[in-house]
Amino acid sequence: IIKLQRIVENKWFTRFILAVILFNAVLLGLATDERIYSQYEEIFVALDIIVLVIFTIEILMKLAVYRFRFFQDGWNIFDFVIVFGTLVLYNSHFIAVLRILRVLRVLRAISVVPSLRRLVRALFMAIPAIGSVTVLMGIIFYIYAIIGTSFFSDLAPEYFGNVGLSTLTLFQVFTLESWASGVFRPIFAEVTWSWIYFVSFITISAFIILNLIVGEIVNNAQQ
Amino acid sequence: IIKLQRIVENKWFTRFILAVILFNAVLLGLATDERIYSQYEEIFVALDIIVLVIFTIEILMKLAVYRFRFFQDGWNIFDFVIVFGTLVLYNSHFIAVLRILRVLRVLRAISVVPSLRRLVRALFMAIPAIGSVTVLMGIIFYIYAIIGTSFFSDLAPEYFGNVGLSTLTLFQVFTLESWASGVFRPIFAEVTWSWIYFVSFITISAFIILNLIVGEIVNNAQQ
Amino acid sequence: IIKLQRIVENKWFTRFILAVILFNAVLLGLATDERIYSQYEEIFVALDIIVLVIFTIEILMKLAVYRFRFFQDGWNIFDFVIVFGTLVLYNSHFIAVLRILRVLRVLRAISVVPSLRRLVRALFMAIPAIGSVTVLMGIIFYIYAIIGTSFFSDLAPEYFGNVGLSTLTLFQVFTLESWASGVFRPIFAEVTWSWIYFVSFITISAFIILNLIVGEIVNNAQQ
Amino acid sequence: IIKLQRIVENKWFTRFILAVILFNAVLLGLATDERIYSQYEEIFVALDIIVLVIFTIEILMKLAVYRFRFFQDGWNIFDFVIVFGTLVLYNSHFIAVLRILRVLRVLRAISVVPSLRRLVRALFMAIPAIGSVTVLMGIIFYIYAIIGTSFFSDLAPEYFGNVGLSTLTLFQVFTLESWASGVFRPIFAEVTWSWIYFVSFITISAFIILNLIVGEIVNNAQQ
Ligand code: NA
Ligand code: NA
Repeated sequence: IIKLQRIVENKWFTRFILAVILFNAVLLGLATDERIYSQYEEIFVALDIIVLVIFTIEILMKLAVYRFRFFQDGWNIFDFVIVFGTLVLYNSHFIAVLRILRVLRVLRAISVVPSLRRLVRALFMAIPAIGSVTVLMGIIFYIYAIIGTSFFSDLAPEYFGNVGLSTLTLFQVFTLESWASGVFRPIFAEVTWSWIYFVSFITISAFIILNLIVGEIVNNAQQ
Repeated sequence: IIKLQRIVENKWFTRFILAVILFNAVLLGLATDERIYSQYEEIFVALDIIVLVIFTIEILMKLAVYRFRFFQDGWNIFDFVIVFGTLVLYNSHFIAVLRILRVLRVLRAISVVPSLRRLVRALFMAIPAIGSVTVLMGIIFYIYAIIGTSFFSDLAPEYFGNVGLSTLTLFQVFTLESWASGVFRPIFAEVTWSWIYFVSFITISAFIILNLIVGEIVNNAQQ
Repeated sequence: IIKLQRIVENKWFTRFILAVILFNAVLLGLATDERIYSQYEEIFVALDIIVLVIFTIEILMKLAVYRFRFFQDGWNIFDFVIVFGTLVLYNSHFIAVLRILRVLRVLRAISVVPSLRRLVRALFMAIPAIGSVTVLMGIIFYIYAIIGTSFFSDLAPEYFGNVGLSTLTLFQVFTLESWASGVFRPIFAEVTWSWIYFVSFITISAFIILNLIVGEIVNNAQQ
Repeated sequence: IIKLQRIVENKWFTRFILAVILFNAVLLGLATDERIYSQYEEIFVALDIIVLVIFTIEILMKLAVYRFRFFQDGWNIFDFVIVFGTLVLYNSHFIAVLRILRVLRVLRAISVVPSLRRLVRALFMAIPAIGSVTVLMGIIFYIYAIIGTSFFSDLAPEYFGNVGLSTLTLFQVFTLESWASGVFRPIFAEVTWSWIYFVSFITISAFIILNLIVGEIVNNAQQ
């Protein structure tokens, strides 16, 4: 086991895994070209299996070394799900899920490169600060989605047909994408007061997000 | 009265109210689906009355306990207006207002959850700092709206037909939404100097807002 | 003269001037409505003359009191130009200039309200810090405008017909408005390498502006 | 040599070079007008040669004075490449490259004006801090490009036809330009789950960039 631990924690082992991840990423890129893929399909499938076997062995080695401590690291859980998810679903009908699991293997590069690992940890640590703002934004979105659906669903079914579509449209309006030319002006032509709906939504949501950013900067600067 | 106060300030009382608010929110979401609503209309109406009765009793209890101090808290005033506004307008012709009052009940979730309450208080406290910038932006918008209306109203009546429409269009330009492709380029094809109007408006308003944000960050960081 | 100074520096004098400015602003707003204007044209013209006379007397009084010191304040120069510009051009053919001068009188509200005056002074003080960034952005815009004009002028004459149009289009691209859907994709369909032109321009200009904002925040925070 | 060094380091020498650079910039601007260019083509060609000769002599003088130290400054290398690249490619078939080299001479203005030189140095020093964020964004873009290509390439070949086009489209989505109206909604009409693809991409990339900016502000403020 100690021998195994030495191998697993060797920097060449990590570099080899990183090389396999990058090789896998290049393969995925080439495989999107249907002409190349159909010509060398067998090679692609074979190389994909080899990559999967290497990753499986790597995780089994780490499991043997670290036992339950393996699952204390979020990245290890991620690696485990990505690899064993593929093994479990192999030859099943969930082809779309399999394809996405295969692509997500590229994310393993983050867990292997320390600077990326640190960066992503910092990003995840910024999430709790966003917590209550996200809930507030959720309430704002929900209220506007219900108002939008109940008043504009017949007028613009594509945008406000149901609460789900309305939420999606509000996300589009929130990003300011074609909010006037695409969404607002056709509705405004029929319902005059709709400008209050859109202008207030943009003003409120932008104000909340701006205050979130200001708050995050100030909090970080004071630590 | 002390007994009542104990009930009103009990955490289970607050949790129960929060549960009713969330239940009300789910109801509102389901009611936007016309098929579901028409099938179970009576149930929806009944549940809505029950929710309204619970909220009325809650406010009456709080009024009995706190008397005039009740109205010292902005959130209590909000709750009062939302609930008694509905009671006053019930069975009246202001159906649109009633529908909006009903949706606004979801906002009550903010007053019940302490972290949201704090967040919204912080947001409201950021407003006075924006005060004079808002007035300045108002002056800028008004001047550009009058210039836009007097020079482009015949050319683009949809965008600059009157001062109101011009202000709305300037808000759209301010958010950079289709300002060139939709608003500016058709006018530019006729009035060459119009580029000065649009470029100066975008530059000035973006400059003011950027300085507002910079100032807010610096002020908050120095407190 | 001392009597005059007492009047000019009296707070009720300033309030009266502010009232005239606001009254003038309301007049301008009403005058944009062609129906209202044509019906009461004489009243509008008369009131406009009264406002102009009040402003002229105000400036003459201040000139009598402060003499040359009057022109040491930028706002006084602005007031002087706005009012005497109108007097000089009255009944001339520069009707468009006159209309804009009339609207710019609304800006006088800034010089009369102290908090707005301070805000605008702060904004003007932020300009020198932007100085060299503006020059750099000018160089970037100029280089891209020349490249754009020499390579895309035949393909998209509306956007890149000459250096002026190209600069305007680059401003639109800089604001990210329809840069892809409107400007880039039609050109990309003909000239494959054009993506380098647009992506590099957006990346470089956004990078410069972001660093400007970061720098301004840091500089202000350290003062 | 010392005499030469005195000339090269004289402020009038630098001013003369700046004047030539600006003159060259004006020439480039005028030359984009095809009518002007075709009428005075010989003058343009002659003046261009004169400018090139002046720049060549300048660099040769500096080379004579500073020898190898000349290449220790990045700006000198840039000047060298721009000028000698033109000399090497003169009368060759790489006309497009020559035109771009000629336009890039305008960038020489940066190296001659000290305040611009300092600004650009500060900008370059901000790049390493962006390093690992760029790698992370690269991974995110690559994963989404592969998923986009494999699922939407048949549906929207213009946007997701291959990994290159998908990356370009993701850049457009990242800038929020027509992401919904142009790219997302037509795909959403066919593939319902595509909203997860777009909303997650926008949320993740905006979150990373926002944290990058917050981090840069905080880091700079603490130095
Ligand atoms: Na936009
Ligand atoms: Na747009």
